[in-house]
Amino acid sequence: MVTANATASAAHPSGTRPSKVLTLESMNPNIRTMEYAVRGAIPIKADELREQLKTQPNSLPFKQITPCNIGNPQQLNQKPLTFLRQVSALMEYADLLKPEMIETTRKLFPEDAIERAKRNLAYVSGAAGAYTHSLGIHEVRQNVARFIEQRDGFPANPNSICLTSGASGAVERVLDMLISSPNVGVMIPIPQYPLYTATLTRLNAQAIPYYLQEEDWQLSIGDLEGALAKARSSGIDVRALVVINPGNPTGGCLLDSNIAEIVQFCEREHLVLLADEVYQTNIYTETNPFVSFKKIVSQLGSQVELFSFHSISKGMIGECGRRGGYYEAVNIDEQIMGQLFKLASVSLCPNVMGQMAVDIMVNPPKPGDQSYGLYQEEIDGIYQSLKRRAKKLAEAFNSLPNMTCNDAQGAMYLFPKIEFPQAFIDEAKQLGQSPDSVYCMRMLESTGISVVPGSGFGQYPGTFHFRSTFLPPESLFDEFINGFKHFHTDFMGRYSSSPKI
Amino acid sequence: MVTANATASAAHPSGTRPSKVLTLESMNPNIRTMEYAVRGAIPIKADELREQLKTQPNSLPFKQITPCNIGNPQQLNQKPLTFLRQVSALMEYADLLKPEMIETTRKLFPEDAIERAKRNLAYVSGAAGAYTHSLGIHEVRQNVARFIEQRDGFPANPNSICLTSGASGAVERVLDMLISSPNVGVMIPIPQYPLYTATLTRLNAQAIPYYLQEEDWQLSIGDLEGALAKARSSGIDVRALVVINPGNPTGGCLLDSNIAEIVQFCEREHLVLLADEVYQTNIYTETNPFVSFKKIVSQLGSQVELFSFHSISKGMIGECGRRGGYYEAVNIDEQIMGQLFKLASVSLCPNVMGQMAVDIMVNPPKPGDQSYGLYQEEIDGIYQSLKRRAKKLAEAFNSLPNMTCNDAQGAMYLFPKIEFPQAFIDEAKQLGQSPDSVYCMRMLESTGISVVPGSGFGQYPGTFHFRSTFLPPESLFDEFINGFKHFHTDFMGRYSSSPKI
Repeated sequence: MVTANATASAAHPSGTRPSKVLTLESMNPNIRTMEYAVRGAIPIKADELREQLKTQPNSLPFKQITPCNIGNPQQLNQKPLTFLRQVSALMEYADLLKPEMIETTRKLFPEDAIERAKRNLAYVSGAAGAYTHSLGIHEVRQNVARFIEQRDGFPANPNSICLTSGASGAVERVLDMLISSPNVGVMIPIPQYPLYTATLTRLNAQAIPYYLQEEDWQLSIGDLEGALAKARSSGIDVRALVVINPGNPTGGCLLDSNIAEIVQFCEREHLVLLADEVYQTNIYTETNPFVSFKKIVSQLGSQVELFSFHSISKGMIGECGRRGGYYEAVNIDEQIMGQLFKLASVSLCPNVMGQMAVDIMVNPPKPGDQSYGLYQEEIDGIYQSLKRRAKKLAEAFNSLPNMTCNDAQGAMYLFPKIEFPQAFIDEAKQLGQSPDSVYCMRMLESTGISVVPGSGFGQYPGTFHFRSTFLPPESLFDEFINGFKHFHTDFMGRYSSSPKI
Repeated sequence: MVTANATASAAHPSGTRPSKVLTLESMNPNIRTMEYAVRGAIPIKADELREQLKTQPNSLPFKQITPCNIGNPQQLNQKPLTFLRQVSALMEYADLLKPEMIETTRKLFPEDAIERAKRNLAYVSGAAGAYTHSLGIHEVRQNVARFIEQRDGFPANPNSICLTSGASGAVERVLDMLISSPNVGVMIPIPQYPLYTATLTRLNAQAIPYYLQEEDWQLSIGDLEGALAKARSSGIDVRALVVINPGNPTGGCLLDSNIAEIVQFCEREHLVLLADEVYQTNIYTETNPFVSFKKIVSQLGSQVELFSFHSISKGMIGECGRRGGYYEAVNIDEQIMGQLFKLASVSLCPNVMGQMAVDIMVNPPKPGDQSYGLYQEEIDGIYQSLKRRAKKLAEAFNSLPNMTCNDAQGAMYLFPKIEFPQAFIDEAKQLGQSPDSVYCMRMLESTGISVVPGSGFGQYPGTFHFRSTFLPPESLFDEFINGFKHFHTDFMGRYSSSPKI
């Protein structure tokens, strides 16, 4: 022990040897700086309150936490798609398909689920528990390519598709490829899903913000040009543009004319385009249908380098916990494709059942299949309900004082704007916090509703918002809305009666 | 278009505008430099040959590829554990548990699998498709803690356990936390599993090699001290030591006395200890049982900062494709625990069924449970077979000219040493390749057996090895061994008859 202490003192002669090697001071400063509000202070507080309600059910002014901070539909009782779960169960316990069990199995599972399980098991030579190819199972990638072709009317190459563990991991991987120095910049929308700022901070790169126009959440090419010119003039090597469509947190959906402008801007300005299209089936208006960036790139014959991301977590599938998704790489250099393969191979492979769920998402039961009717009924039921709830919540927000909100054209969120009384803004300032954060924390503490402050996504300076999902189940939706209305009216009443400064 | 070209020319005034933004030259140079041999040139060639065999079955001197490059047992027909798959299937399609279906379900599933599925579904309030807590389901972490306590005889804290998407993602996350500048160094064994060098290269940190002693694959504290002193004297901020036990690729298993020396070394030298213990149940000798680093740290009352990694991919479970694992953080600063939580939250959560498989790994059927007998029989059958195959393959390697190989004390690999004839070494040099790589590629091309060259793991200078799993099924094991023997004898015969230089 004498030797040990002597060595330690030699290494730290001033006697200030820290008690730990890994501390806030010594750790990766990029991770320390990183912020991720979707699971930040408010959801953490919500977890605490949920625990408190378990042990002291009457200790708070509400009976349960309503988690509207994250697009996690099955947490709020959305039922999984039966066919997807049937096929998954059969693949998990493939003994059910053996001759000695199949007759009983047929009493519990429809024939097309049995056939589908057999076919998908054949993709992996029966071994659903083995590592697959690092880019994902070849046949699933073929099915994804076919889905894209049918969606867009343009060819897609299975070798350009990489299955991933949700879209988040895919975005992180592509950004990691792009960032060659701290001087590299990536344009991101404001407001944005904070995966982008978090990952750019972790990778020590520059996030170059451009603002979405709140009147319709479309992109202004003039704004893009302005933001790009400003960044480039300060010496930043701007390489890529991120677009989230349908928008998170905005709920906006880009018109094809706007997408074409964006593609042309990227080609002109030599920017790689990252299109986050995970909400592509969450579309609620006829005026703003979903159009993929891949389709417009193909229509224009553009050579722009495009990565498009999709996921099983959203849409009507909502299999968030399964972690499945893919990206399609368009016009990407062949050698870069090899490097992306190498990068994927270090993580071995995305989980097999996530890959299989992607397969079902892109290749669901067809007309004439035994499960077609139920599948469509489930999809349509979820879709119509989401559409009703989106409308109802926007109406509620718009009925309240000091609050305006666009209808959701897509996605799972509303992003209402609040005009805070000056007295409250000053009060928040004194607390050293952003007013929207204080407002959201108070909402949580008085209603149990957990949302994310606008500052977690970024917002136009001087404006304040929050993001709420519209995922609480319809049976509880009025209660949810009333709880919120009561809180907001009370909040505004208190401040409007307080003396102005 | 005129405007577009003008802008492009302005940005690239020399007229050398590259055709792509993202190229080998512009990409993240750390990823470009990164190597990962387990899925490198030889497995890629194996994929090509596998495709060739599909279309032209008689075009090669072998009928199938034997993938011994990766520890992927179910790819080579190892059967999954029945109980694990039964519970998984019931959780996937939870309608099977409903009153109207349960009677038929009981004809296909044992009662304890049904009870277990109900219990595990209750952990997630019935929603197996929702995001979980980012650190993993609380009850599963409690069960992991209990497992560690029973294994080691010392307390474990569920809040110190983080469920992950396999051990690889966990290792990457911890290394990312540790690397605050390019000057940070992490000590890694040579030979090592190349996840470590790949990740350190990607994170732009220094890998500080220390050599394992081939006579028994134990660690020499003198060697550790030497490697550390050399690195520190050149100004490197060495912060952590990686130990892989049981060893990959070596198959060695550390004695408790050696582990204690390593813990004391880390404490003395102020190093965070990363213990990769994913092969902890793959143990084949009585002389070298598995002892966890956590146990020794606890016995010594050491304050060393320890991360211990475990996985469902190895052991007798072999659920590689599911992507499940965990790490336990011991003696880690509280604020760092918060930062690790934040980092996990950006990736949302590890996949739910991987978490549930961890739960079954740490809490299998107990004596008296209906499935206990079968579970034990399956585990023991796999274990005894692995043990037989390990021994048989080592004997085969040791029977061959110019080849020596330690018995596997643990893990799934042998790492035989080959003495290459000088003529072959010279030939490889002229090809600009390492001799072991050339040897392994020829082995693949003449036998279909895919292994990984020693240079992919690192090896003592001037020595040559390869890593082979012993996972081909017993029914094909003699054929596998004979194919290899024939190749090696032929290879050696050709070079020993060639004129010496």
